[in-house]
Amino acid sequence: MKRNIDAVLQALDANGEDALARLFEFLAIPSISTDPAYDADCRRAAQWVCDQLSAIGLQATVHATEGKPMVVAHAKEAQRKDSPLHVLFYGHYDVQPVDPLDLWHASPFEPQLSEDPVNGTVIVARGASDDKGQLMTFLEAARAWHDTHGQLPVSISFLFEGEEECGSPSLAPFLADHMDELKADIALVCDTGQWDADSPAITTRLRGLAFSEIVLTGPSRDLHSGMYGGPAANPIRVLSAILAGLHDDEGRIQIPGFYDDIIEPDDAQMAQWQGLGFDGGQFLGEIGLSRPMGETDRSVLEQLWARPTAEINGISGGYSGPGTKTVIPSQASAKVSFRLVPGQDPDSVLKKFRAFVTARLPEDCKVDFVGEGGTPAVGFDVNARPFQAAAEALAEEWGKPPVMMGSGASIPIVESFQGALGMESLMLGFALDDDRIHSPNEKYNLASFKKGARSWARILDKFAAL
Amino acid sequence: MKRNIDAVLQALDANGEDALARLFEFLAIPSISTDPAYDADCRRAAQWVCDQLSAIGLQATVHATEGKPMVVAHAKEAQRKDSPLHVLFYGHYDVQPVDPLDLWHASPFEPQLSEDPVNGTVIVARGASDDKGQLMTFLEAARAWHDTHGQLPVSISFLFEGEEECGSPSLAPFLADHMDELKADIALVCDTGQWDADSPAITTRLRGLAFSEIVLTGPSRDLHSGMYGGPAANPIRVLSAILAGLHDDEGRIQIPGFYDDIIEPDDAQMAQWQGLGFDGGQFLGEIGLSRPMGETDRSVLEQLWARPTAEINGISGGYSGPGTKTVIPSQASAKVSFRLVPGQDPDSVLKKFRAFVTARLPEDCKVDFVGEGGTPAVGFDVNARPFQAAAEALAEEWGKPPVMMGSGASIPIVESFQGALGMESLMLGFALDDDRIHSPNEKYNLASFKKGARSWARILDKFAAL
Repeated sequence: MKRNIDAVLQALDANGEDALARLFEFLAIPSISTDPAYDADCRRAAQWVCDQLSAIGLQATVHATEGKPMVVAHAKEAQRKDSPLHVLFYGHYDVQPVDPLDLWHASPFEPQLSEDPVNGTVIVARGASDDKGQLMTFLEAARAWHDTHGQLPVSISFLFEGEEECGSPSLAPFLADHMDELKADIALVCDTGQWDADSPAITTRLRGLAFSEIVLTGPSRDLHSGMYGGPAANPIRVLSAILAGLHDDEGRIQIPGFYDDIIEPDDAQMAQWQGLGFDGGQFLGEIGLSRPMGETDRSVLEQLWARPTAEINGISGGYSGPGTKTVIPSQASAKVSFRLVPGQDPDSVLKKFRAFVTARLPEDCKVDFVGEGGTPAVGFDVNARPFQAAAEALAEEWGKPPVMMGSGASIPIVESFQGALGMESLMLGFALDDDRIHSPNEKYNLASFKKGARSWARILDKFAAL
Repeated sequence: MKRNIDAVLQALDANGEDALARLFEFLAIPSISTDPAYDADCRRAAQWVCDQLSAIGLQATVHATEGKPMVVAHAKEAQRKDSPLHVLFYGHYDVQPVDPLDLWHASPFEPQLSEDPVNGTVIVARGASDDKGQLMTFLEAARAWHDTHGQLPVSISFLFEGEEECGSPSLAPFLADHMDELKADIALVCDTGQWDADSPAITTRLRGLAFSEIVLTGPSRDLHSGMYGGPAANPIRVLSAILAGLHDDEGRIQIPGFYDDIIEPDDAQMAQWQGLGFDGGQFLGEIGLSRPMGETDRSVLEQLWARPTAEINGISGGYSGPGTKTVIPSQASAKVSFRLVPGQDPDSVLKKFRAFVTARLPEDCKVDFVGEGGTPAVGFDVNARPFQAAAEALAEEWGKPPVMMGSGASIPIVESFQGALGMESLMLGFALDDDRIHSPNEKYNLASFKKGARSWARILDKFAAL
């Protein structure tokens, strides 16, 4: 049964003060997960979220874990059978620590509105954007649907964790134990951002990661560079030569077969990215650089969103204290990681890397590869029905279609949903680059909060029509 | 006036027991300079040496310094005027610590004779070789000359320090303060070794050193490798490429002009080295290597004694703790040093190195060179009269001419004499590679002690005839 979205949007507009009051109540709970001193506050935040879910007719439960509790909620049985789509909404009720406290203009857990020349009215508090503000856009949309029409438009399950800011140690076992209960048609993950303040976005690609540490051994012991220097192999020299060979002068990675199997973005995607007017020079300028170091035939945005990397994250060998020591060390090592794109298999990449290193090893040196691991990239089909439905809803709310963004980094929960539950994620949020998440004076635009809730209300409406 | 050397040699042979008793008395003093607990023992050792010098008719003085005392002695005025040559003999009365004590077969300061299947009778004690045994070969030769002929054959001054094993902090100021008093025609430095047990040697070449630390800066701060990886310059990658370019595949150093000005050993020197039958494979095998990494057209011995190096003594950048961290660091650094050979100027080498690095720097990176310094190589003319006289004397004692050796490392006292006093050094000693200096069960062959003293007696005789 198709219900009227306009009434839902009117309800959201009419009840904005109440929605803000609820957000302020939530923001006032100092649910800092990494500090045991705030353990009771985290439990209080979990219960607060659970109560919100119960209030809109859901069967909500606080589950104890070895860490912070999980909050899980489901629509009632009757609606679950009825719905064309079952979605799992994910969020986290915990927040980052607040130090350095003296850089805050007001107490981080006494939320307030403030006027900002660029962003208009902003909500300032720890968690205003990450993730309390973001998750409340969805909860308010669901509440408006419930209050207007007596029930939610599709079957929605909820999962809220309280350890996202400290590595989610309880998440994997919880997913494994509640697989059947949590598996849905798609996950909604809200802790991503817009392209800019006027342009909504769906993040459809995340790079994966493969990592290894090379430990090279040359001489059987550290040597005096006077007594042995010249004929003796220096593992730092050998390591430098291997690492220097990872890229050619055009920024292409030289590991044989490294680029095999990559699934390139389609033409429509490329055309949208090219139309974004992304300023690579400004992006690099903000970190003191000017010349892109990736493949010279790729734009900066492609280098970030659609191309893999080979990066040296750390190197060590010999003496690095003050002054000099004329040593030829026995060993040298480097931590290497690869950002991967869709199509690349982490194990296969690591195998090719090992072959690359081994082929360049002088006969006298040996190599060990330690601490290897990885996760594949994520690349969702933007033409799949839920993505298209969300895109239509966003276009109606914002007056322009969403940017189908990539992200150079990974989002562990998305990988977990894909790996543990075989479930794709619609990554969609209303954060902005200047929200100062994890930093003093974190903010969320009041417009983000209001239009975010309206956007979700429209998305749920479109889902109901699938 | 030429005096009879045979009588001196006979006296040395006849009084071997007394000489050994004196050495044992000296070895029993635990003059460990690096440990303040042995300060009184160091002063006792200095006084003991001073008494020995007085006993052979010299004007000997113990000079207080800010550290351990210096012992200085001179021939009497009459003899100084008379002598064809004035030499300064240098030695040190301090010794290395003895730990690990449990690896010693007997107490390190209770010297004893022991039978060794390879070396025959050996003197075992801390300092037996380095440097008490070595310096006593000279003192016994001087004593035998004094006892036999009533005076020394040439004018000899003595300088004994007590801080050689802890970096000689008092030496430079002492040399500066006593320049006129200590300057002689040539210094005799006894803490070097033979080529092998049957072959005496004079060390005529030492490599010099130039050192620098490269600090490369790329991005203005550490970056997340997901958010920036691809376009962002990684200073470890840049540093690796620069360091990898220091050598070509034939081991030649690629810094423009690096090999300019080198003074190659002459043909006679090269012929002697080639005749030594040095086993480069065995040398490398002892440190777990097999293939020489220096210039492919040079022998291992040449690579060690006559060719310069470019060595990376340490490298660091990014994360080197346990596990992974997906960081692109802002900085990376490497400590680089060059062993130099005669003809190369340290400042000039460092200037060429800076130019080499700067020319390879991407426009976005900057480099700082910190902690630079160096000392030139030492290469003495083996045809100079004192060297030839010493060579003749050694040939008479050992039945074969001495090997004119190089050393890949430096000997600070030789550099100090050359730099502070403009004085060349005759580096001549009777230590063997298996003497275990600085290690448990240090030994000096009884034959080294006896033939060492006879060698010095003959050398002094040759000096008197110059």
